[in-house]
Parts: sequence; C-alpha cells; structure tokens
Amino acid sequence: MNSNLRGALYTVLFFIASEVLYKLYCKTKKHKSKTEIGSESRLSSTSLQVLFFPDEKVACKDYFITDNGCVKQNCRFSHEKSSLSELYKHLCSGKTTVDICVYIITCKDLAEILMKMFKRGVKIRIITDKDQLQASGSQIWSLRKEGIPVRTNDSSYLMHHKFVIIDNRVLINGSFNWTYQAITGNQENVLITDDDAVTSVFKAEFQRLWEDFGSQNSTGDLRLQE
Amino acid sequence: MNSNLRGALYTVLFFIASEVLYKLYCKTKKHKSKTEIGSESRLSSTSLQVLFFPDEKVACKDYFITDNGCVKQNCRFSHEKSSLSELYKHLCSGKTTVDICVYIITCKDLAEILMKMFKRGVKIRIITDKDQLQASGSQIWSLRKEGIPVRTNDSSYLMHHKFVIIDNRVLINGSFNWTYQAITGNQENVLITDDDAVTSVFKAEFQRLWEDFGSQNSTGDLRLQE
Repeated sequence: MNSNLRGALYTVLFFIASEVLYKLYCKTKKHKSKTEIGSESRLSSTSLQVLFFPDEKVACKDYFITDNGCVKQNCRFSHEKSSLSELYKHLCSGKTTVDICVYIITCKDLAEILMKMFKRGVKIRIITDKDQLQASGSQIWSLRKEGIPVRTNDSSYLMHHKFVIIDNRVLINGSFNWTYQAITGNQENVLITDDDAVTSVFKAEFQRLWEDFGSQNSTGDLRLQE
Repeated sequence: MNSNLRGALYTVLFFIASEVLYKLYCKTKKHKSKTEIGSESRLSSTSLQVLFFPDEKVACKDYFITDNGCVKQNCRFSHEKSSLSELYKHLCSGKTTVDICVYIITCKDLAEILMKMFKRGVKIRIITDKDQLQASGSQIWSLRKEGIPVRTNDSSYLMHHKFVIIDNRVLINGSFNWTYQAITGNQENVLITDDDAVTSVFKAEFQRLWEDFGSQNSTGDLRLQE
C-alpha cells in the first residue's frame, strides 16, 4: 500500500474512533443526568418536565415530602406517584427562595408545604389576585398570618399568572391554579424547566409585579402588603 | 517529510476544514432562522419566546397579518408591535394544521384569523370548555358555523388548558385565554417554543383529549362534535 494512503487511512480511523468514543461519552452523560433527576418524564438536556392534570386522587403530602413518610394506617390520600406528587417534590426542593405568582390558592396541602418551608427559613413571596382573597377556602390569610409576604393587584382585571420560581433557578408555569378542583378535576398543564433563558424573564416579571403591587396605596389590600 | 506523515497531515487538514465549514453553515442557518421569525425576544438556540400581557391596546389585525396592511384612516387599533401582534404572527405562520385547546374564546380578532386560515385550507381543530360555549361573545358558534370542528369536555370540571400547536411544530402555552380582557387587562403569560421535547407531549395530550371528547355521546354537545 502506498505509504501516503496508509497515513491517511490511520488518521481517518483515528477520527472515527474518537467520534465514536465522544458519542458514547455524551450518551452516558445524558443517561446519568436523567437518572440523577430521578424522573422518567424528563424531556431534554436542560431539565424539563411536563405534568398534566387531573390526577385520580390527591397525593399524600406526608408520604411524599416528609422523611418518615405517611404513618396513617388508612390514609385517604394517594401514595402513587402523580402530577401533584411531582409538584410537591419540586416545591420542596427549594432551599433559599420560592416566588409564587398564582391567581388563586385554596389547596391547603400546597399552602402547608409553603408554611413548612417558610419555618425552615426559605424566603417565600406570594403574588395573587385581589378578588380571589375572598374565595371560599382561600389559604392566603393563613399564609399571611404565618408571616409570608403577600401582594395583590389593585384593579378589576385579573392577576391571572400561574407560575412559581424556585431558588431563582426553576420555573413552574402553566394553566394550573392551586385548587383541589384543578388537581382532581380539571384538564390542566404544568411545565417545569431550569432553562435560564425562560426562568430569567419570569424572574424579571415577578420582580416587576412585586414592586408595582407594593407601591399601590389606594386600597384596603395594603394590610396584606409588606 | 515522511510520506506517511504527509498523508496524515493532509487528512487532518481536510477534517479541520470540513469541521470549520460545517460550523459556519450551522451558524448561518441559525441566524437565518432567527431573522425569519423576526423577533428580538428569542431567548435560546431552539426558538423560544415569552410574551406578557396586558398590552396597552388591541393590536390591529389587518396591519399585522394582511399583505396590504391597514387601510383605515383612523384605525382605533394599535399598529405598535405588542404581545398580541406577536401572537397573530405565530398563528398566521401555520401552513398545515392549527390545534387549539383553550378554555374560552371570545376574542373576535383571533377567531377571524382562524376562519381566514381555515378558508385557506389550514386544518383547524378546537377543544374548549363546555360551559364557556355560553359565555357572552363566545366565538365558538361562528367558528363552528364556518365548518371548523370543535370538541368539548363532558363534565362539570373545567377544560382549563390554554395551548395551541401550530404545524405540529410550535407550541403556544401559558395562562392566556382568548379574550379581550386577557389582552388589555389581565396579567398573563404566553410561552412559545418549537422545542420538540415540549411540543411532542402537548401534541399527544391534544390527540388524547380530541379522541376522548369525540367518544362522548351523553350530552347535547354532540352537535358541536365531528
């Protein structure tokens, strides 16, 4: 064989081998990342998860968020993995801050998770719709009583967002309000991502509304504002 | 120079050159794709855009979607770029299919865009909430009259999604219902992406609901179903 040709052949083989090894490395890395996050419904290389509601039953808070799990003998809540249990896990992953911008909060289980985190030292801020403060079962008053700062809009239009930002890093967004009806009845979606391109614009929107709603001084809602 | 070595060197140079050319090609392609979409608020390498409402005014449909623009002398609608005008553009980019799953549609401008596209041969399917068919100004009846197939839930719970899939490729999702109040009053968000990891799960959800709601035969809503 011509020695020029042999040289070229070796080099091509070297390139092919390194390409194959690189692809294998990428595959392993991707697989590892999926395993680390521990959910089969991750969808892309940045962490991403889509949840659909309704769930069949309300997930047991204790079972999914406490170290000891659920100790009730005949627990009426579900111990099966569900969209709500995934939401519990994401919320509980918050270490420093949880910023919530949700139209209505009547789900006691989700509110109790926030109170628990707040007691642990996680900074929580809530923006919600003014008119929904009066909704039957609104948890805003309990959350406010606990010391969690809450701000609301000051207009007849709706504060209709439904998003949460965890540790300035993870965004939870979709159609889902924090109500039991949304959990076990409605068709709803929730998209969870840590893609900085997405979270950064929602972080800015939260801060804008927080400051905007904090400067309002024309309504009785001030008693809710810090 | 050893001829083996020379052969290897030529091959390495060939690989480097093709790698450089490929990277340049990718860069041009990416740039082209961004330019085509024509929005400065794209956020990452997959096409991604976040829109926030309210807009100051309702965007002029004619100005943004027709070839001739708006011919009215004193148009009362806005000719400034806005969240709604961006939404118009994305909807109008549909070439083959537009699948809509929205709680309520009372915005006549958005409905008229759908009718126009339907007449052009774009396949449109709508899933909406049963109770919202009776909402004041519901556009569902006009859309249905035009021949656009509509399906609804058959329960007291809400079909509360607000997402659209364009050409099986682009997802529009968020808190935004198709109402004028949402456009110029409410705090709302819309996320638009062509990330296949996201669109594919929403496509599956749409199809699941379409089939599910199509098989219902216990209510008068059947007259709306195809």
